[in-house]
Amino acid sequence: MEFTVKQIATLLGGEVAGNDTLAITKLAKIEEGRPGDISFLSNLKYEPHLYTTQASAVIVDRSFQPRKPVEAALIFVENSYSAFTRLLEEYHQRMSFARVGVEQPAFAGDGAQFGEQVYRGAFSYVGRNCRIGHNVKIYPHAYIGDNVRIGDNTIIHTGARILDNCIIGQYCVIHPNAVIGSEGFGFAPQPDGTYKTIPQLGNVILEDFVNVGSNTTIDCATMGSTIIRQGVKLDNLIQIGHNVEIGKNTVIAAQTGISGSTKIGENCTIAGQVGFAGHLTIANGTKVGAQSGVGKNVYEEGTALNSSPAFGLKESMRSLAVFRRLPDLERRLTYLEKKTEK
Amino acid sequence: MEFTVKQIATLLGGEVAGNDTLAITKLAKIEEGRPGDISFLSNLKYEPHLYTTQASAVIVDRSFQPRKPVEAALIFVENSYSAFTRLLEEYHQRMSFARVGVEQPAFAGDGAQFGEQVYRGAFSYVGRNCRIGHNVKIYPHAYIGDNVRIGDNTIIHTGARILDNCIIGQYCVIHPNAVIGSEGFGFAPQPDGTYKTIPQLGNVILEDFVNVGSNTTIDCATMGSTIIRQGVKLDNLIQIGHNVEIGKNTVIAAQTGISGSTKIGENCTIAGQVGFAGHLTIANGTKVGAQSGVGKNVYEEGTALNSSPAFGLKESMRSLAVFRRLPDLERRLTYLEKKTEK
Amino acid sequence: MEFTVKQIATLLGGEVAGNDTLAITKLAKIEEGRPGDISFLSNLKYEPHLYTTQASAVIVDRSFQPRKPVEAALIFVENSYSAFTRLLEEYHQRMSFARVGVEQPAFAGDGAQFGEQVYRGAFSYVGRNCRIGHNVKIYPHAYIGDNVRIGDNTIIHTGARILDNCIIGQYCVIHPNAVIGSEGFGFAPQPDGTYKTIPQLGNVILEDFVNVGSNTTIDCATMGSTIIRQGVKLDNLIQIGHNVEIGKNTVIAAQTGISGSTKIGENCTIAGQVGFAGHLTIANGTKVGAQSGVGKNVYEEGTALNSSPAFGLKESMRSLAVFRRLPDLERRLTYLEKKTEK
Repeated sequence: MEFTVKQIATLLGGEVAGNDTLAITKLAKIEEGRPGDISFLSNLKYEPHLYTTQASAVIVDRSFQPRKPVEAALIFVENSYSAFTRLLEEYHQRMSFARVGVEQPAFAGDGAQFGEQVYRGAFSYVGRNCRIGHNVKIYPHAYIGDNVRIGDNTIIHTGARILDNCIIGQYCVIHPNAVIGSEGFGFAPQPDGTYKTIPQLGNVILEDFVNVGSNTTIDCATMGSTIIRQGVKLDNLIQIGHNVEIGKNTVIAAQTGISGSTKIGENCTIAGQVGFAGHLTIANGTKVGAQSGVGKNVYEEGTALNSSPAFGLKESMRSLAVFRRLPDLERRLTYLEKKTEK
Repeated sequence: MEFTVKQIATLLGGEVAGNDTLAITKLAKIEEGRPGDISFLSNLKYEPHLYTTQASAVIVDRSFQPRKPVEAALIFVENSYSAFTRLLEEYHQRMSFARVGVEQPAFAGDGAQFGEQVYRGAFSYVGRNCRIGHNVKIYPHAYIGDNVRIGDNTIIHTGARILDNCIIGQYCVIHPNAVIGSEGFGFAPQPDGTYKTIPQLGNVILEDFVNVGSNTTIDCATMGSTIIRQGVKLDNLIQIGHNVEIGKNTVIAAQTGISGSTKIGENCTIAGQVGFAGHLTIANGTKVGAQSGVGKNVYEEGTALNSSPAFGLKESMRSLAVFRRLPDLERRLTYLEKKTEK
Repeated sequence: MEFTVKQIATLLGGEVAGNDTLAITKLAKIEEGRPGDISFLSNLKYEPHLYTTQASAVIVDRSFQPRKPVEAALIFVENSYSAFTRLLEEYHQRMSFARVGVEQPAFAGDGAQFGEQVYRGAFSYVGRNCRIGHNVKIYPHAYIGDNVRIGDNTIIHTGARILDNCIIGQYCVIHPNAVIGSEGFGFAPQPDGTYKTIPQLGNVILEDFVNVGSNTTIDCATMGSTIIRQGVKLDNLIQIGHNVEIGKNTVIAAQTGISGSTKIGENCTIAGQVGFAGHLTIANGTKVGAQSGVGKNVYEEGTALNSSPAFGLKESMRSLAVFRRLPDLERRLTYLEKKTEK
């Protein structure tokens, strides 16, 4: 994507000093700027870089006065930091939705319907009777099974797998190689020691504004739906078992696993590599520290947990502190025993 | 897939009261039933739903007598619960094996042989000299390398990767994006601090009735075979190192990792996020709790382990209980020290 | 790949006794050898297998004299063990780079440039303006976004995803379904409890000789680059957050996760299922035990850490030893309390 310095200044409502016809293709930190890049100067600690940067343009505060000659074009705005942030978002948005049309070969099953401004990458697969909304971007090698519905403005990245009957909301982002709706892990032990597969016939529902990280897996429900509520953000390599429900605006970091039928509340913050046992109910606003193992229900909102098995964060910090002193504790006890023997 | 109420009644050996020509496409819980769904009523606690459900048909016990008028068609059978379970299995079976034929474009290398009733999805890849059994389903974007053998009735889901020379048994299910037979992690340290790759030339053998979860990885052996025995069930995001062997009917939950050359016995139950060190031998029937770290051989059958590093389950539960009281323990010790000083 | 016994003898500078026209297609252990295999005998403990093996050829030391008739052709060399190792490496090398040319259909965007001896598998995707070096192997279903550069002799396995603007060095191996350059996990909390996506516009740089395991994910930087230095070896199912930097020749085992902006030093050894918090600096030569959780900077080179939260390896081993005796410790303390009461 390419803009001129002038176009960017107009977008940001700023004035240009210098060459406003230069082409800008990328955003960069001021100390790493190269020709074609635009950067910004907010914290004056970085001012020396302004006089040496190779960036083609730099956004600065309207109040700023350079003390030396500057090679880059300057764009003067009210607040350079928020202007740059706005530019980042605008750039990201345009990049994410830039692709439109169908690259061949792409597969669409009978009865599949597509909205306007859709992108279907080469080797993408859309099954029978799917309904794909407006401005949906289906990247190369993405797989969408039969009877799937996808809301407007959702991005399905390369290699993501959305299996039969799943429902994906609007403004979702499904990252590469994520798997949504594969069969849950259900096996009934038989008298002869073998296991019989318990059929998994449900689906997965993602509400709007959900983010699913790369290589994350979300199993379909045995019957009914595994549900990921509006605004949930899932990092990479997470496992979500069958019939799980995750409440609105809950954020979960990488490599965490949630066993079948557990219900996580709203606005929870779950760190990385955490494990949840199955069939739990976790209250709204629960916070869980990295590598914790949650084996019990959490009834009180805003509870902070830590450790494996998990208990109160503060209590666990105290126990962990003593844990480090355990050899010393044992020595003191032995000494006392000897002393009292006499 | 679509059946009439009558067809289902015949399959289950039941009698219909109501409209037996209705089309059924899905199974649902009675409280969630919608037109086109079939449900069941076994526990009479749920009877009130029978009079309000939108399901098109409900399976009930022969002894059951409705107390009010029912909109849905009723199918009377000996045992409604087991009839519904049978229907679930039948439906699941038919859905899993429904697809037959080749969707274009699909790739098959020279010398690849296919049995009858095979499905090859669009963009699926089958390498040179593969032998694919009867009724095998190879979904879109699945990759099968050269010289691979796959037994009858096995399902290879979308994006699964089966690398050169691997052998897959009958009735296996390989879930989306699983990787079977990629190179193991073997690097020999060199005097200059770099690492030299140790060639990994073996393969992976899956016996019959093996389940491999989504995004699970099973590395090939350095030489010889990594072996997953009959009836083993692996959940999602599991890592199996090179030259590992897993005994018959062992079940492993999500995100567990098994390091190279470890041998797990038969009928073991391994929970989620467990780690095994390399070159271990684990006895038959071993049970390992979630997030445990197993670093030693297990000689006795039926051993239950827990914690990281893992030791006996009961002992670990006792230690973990005291762990929570550690700050109190320290206080008591300090008090005693002061007391005996006097 | 097929060689005659004579060709292999010539490669190894050895002399043949027996039929030197036999075709060899595979390497095997002497006890597992079958027709078409070549094996070796170094440790004389295995000599009995020489007289019963079905392998077509066996490499032996020049000094070795068989005591019974041998069916297999013998190749006499100076050191049978190192000759076999060399053969392994040669075979592995040739297998890895055997494929050349384009299998149809394969996609290449406008402006994509390819070196000589490149392989592009069926259904592989190479985006716009990519520069792909000589002898690069792009397996089926691999995805390479726009503006990606890949150095000579690098292998991109099936289903690997390399997103826009990433730079991959020479002699790298990217294993199946690895994801490089997907968006990092950055969300800014809003006053209403929702989260706003922080645009991730940077890339990932892999220097030369880097190994990325199956289903491993490496997020792009928010701005700038996530950097994996020369010779780094990453196992399967690892998570590398945005803006992370990993120093030269560091080795990381499966299922470990590294949070955003952490810098790992050179020549570190990180075991499996380890977690690192974000924004840390870890000294060169640090060693971290399996399942540890590193939450603090490591300043001293060669530090060995263990446990979660991690502290010194030796200290942690001592604390863990006492942990197992905690119930006993508590009993001893209680006894002492009672004793001193009197």
